[in-house]
Amino acid sequence: MVKNYLALDIGGTKILGAIISDKKILAKEKIKTTSSQDQEEVYGRIKNVITTLLKKVPNIDGIGIGIPGRVNEEGVITFSPNLPFENFHLKNKLQEDFGVTNIVIDNDVNVGMLGEQWIGAAAGHANVLGIFVGTGIGGAVIINNKLLRGAQSIAGEVGHMKLSFDGPKCNCGEKGCLEAYSSKIAMQRYMEEQGMKFDSILKSSVLKNGIAEQNKTIKDAIKKSANYLGEAIGSLVNCLDPDVVVLGGGVSTAIGEYMLKTIEPVANARALVKPNIKLSVLGDEAGLFGAVKLLLSDNK
Amino acid sequence: MVKNYLALDIGGTKILGAIISDKKILAKEKIKTTSSQDQEEVYGRIKNVITTLLKKVPNIDGIGIGIPGRVNEEGVITFSPNLPFENFHLKNKLQEDFGVTNIVIDNDVNVGMLGEQWIGAAAGHANVLGIFVGTGIGGAVIINNKLLRGAQSIAGEVGHMKLSFDGPKCNCGEKGCLEAYSSKIAMQRYMEEQGMKFDSILKSSVLKNGIAEQNKTIKDAIKKSANYLGEAIGSLVNCLDPDVVVLGGGVSTAIGEYMLKTIEPVANARALVKPNIKLSVLGDEAGLFGAVKLLLSDNK
Repeated sequence: MVKNYLALDIGGTKILGAIISDKKILAKEKIKTTSSQDQEEVYGRIKNVITTLLKKVPNIDGIGIGIPGRVNEEGVITFSPNLPFENFHLKNKLQEDFGVTNIVIDNDVNVGMLGEQWIGAAAGHANVLGIFVGTGIGGAVIINNKLLRGAQSIAGEVGHMKLSFDGPKCNCGEKGCLEAYSSKIAMQRYMEEQGMKFDSILKSSVLKNGIAEQNKTIKDAIKKSANYLGEAIGSLVNCLDPDVVVLGGGVSTAIGEYMLKTIEPVANARALVKPNIKLSVLGDEAGLFGAVKLLLSDNK
Repeated sequence: MVKNYLALDIGGTKILGAIISDKKILAKEKIKTTSSQDQEEVYGRIKNVITTLLKKVPNIDGIGIGIPGRVNEEGVITFSPNLPFENFHLKNKLQEDFGVTNIVIDNDVNVGMLGEQWIGAAAGHANVLGIFVGTGIGGAVIINNKLLRGAQSIAGEVGHMKLSFDGPKCNCGEKGCLEAYSSKIAMQRYMEEQGMKFDSILKSSVLKNGIAEQNKTIKDAIKKSANYLGEAIGSLVNCLDPDVVVLGGGVSTAIGEYMLKTIEPVANARALVKPNIKLSVLGDEAGLFGAVKLLLSDNK
């Protein structure tokens, strides 16, 4: 019998939810919110999305969730810089409130890459390196069809590999990290140095429009970012030699094709072999399908 | 019934061989040679070591071999910069000459790290990053107790991750690779810049004596090398988060304890979690035990 699964992709300012059956979305729900420091408020929003979805499809066989942070084996969110959860027993709370026992929660980048590996850009590949470019840079590593979580649950943090000793300062406290060179924050910093003004964090649409309008500053910022990303991919390919490198995240969805023109030749020159680099194809839905795959696989 | 296995660790100027049974060395043979460009001459030396060992223990159940280069699944050496083998069917030749069918051949760093994981510094750990410091820098990655070979057989080439954009030139043609910062070649280059003279490639014993004699130039060269190695380990731990990082190779055997004093604080500062760094404990014998493990496991 075909089963229905509820999938959630929880972000700092949006929650995306769906009920998925046999790789098809039966119902979908998206809420945009202001970011909140109140744990119960954010948990309330999550419950609202679930409740709304359950009204459309009442019978589900499990809940899979991706969140931007670290989750331990008990489903406790131990660290989430963009959400107000700290040592929050999300799994237990949801089990109590909805009576569903089959619940898995993992880092959103891990979950998104699992979706791409299931039915997206990395379908059919057992060994995958995923790099998500957004405000920061996240990553995920799949080896022999299993997510690599690591001894201390940080595997895949490719944003904090060092590209240079005297590079720009990174949010992690170190200098010269990939994230400090290639994230949206890095691109925004370069544009501001060139005199551009922003009243909020750089949006991917600004980058996309900048290319369309041949804005030199924006194009230069993107090319610089892509160049560093190419160097990092080359180094990572030398270490992991994956079947495929998947570029995901908001920036990749908006301007991935343009970035690849710079990334590919740089990564080819750096790596000892020619890497196979693909863009994410599931976009926003990668995290939803990945959450279902998490429930279906032994990747828990 | 306990089985006997013949293990070979083939280098550019030495061949080490042993017959091992139940994790014990029954017979051992080591030949030092001049390096040779003659394929048949080097193959002849390999045969001599095997023949000598078989005179001591005639019945063997398989041959395991580590070589400094790349080997494909058919046991063909496809690339070996320090040996005259190119597309050399080592497995087939040995099967014909000795009538042994059970033969496995792999990269020497992979094999050595498998030995350390079996009964050495990484015993009991399923996820291991090995870094071998010698003339160059090699690496090996073990995930879920299996060697990671990679889509194009280069996984573990951590010597060619980029630490800096304008770093010293590396043998691979790029700039700023770990190998160009932390290998024996890198240390020798620094010492020569400080006025020291060498008539051959730097020996690990020179480094060891330099520490004992408080030679400032030598100590500085080692500290610089160790500092860069610490940075690289930190970045790699962020990506792979292994149970343990094992430092092996001739340099590590000679001066590993001294290097660790610099490596550990640098790697701790760089990595998002505190890495577990150990020195190789099997020394020269890592490759021999690893070759047996290769025969025993599904790591073929």
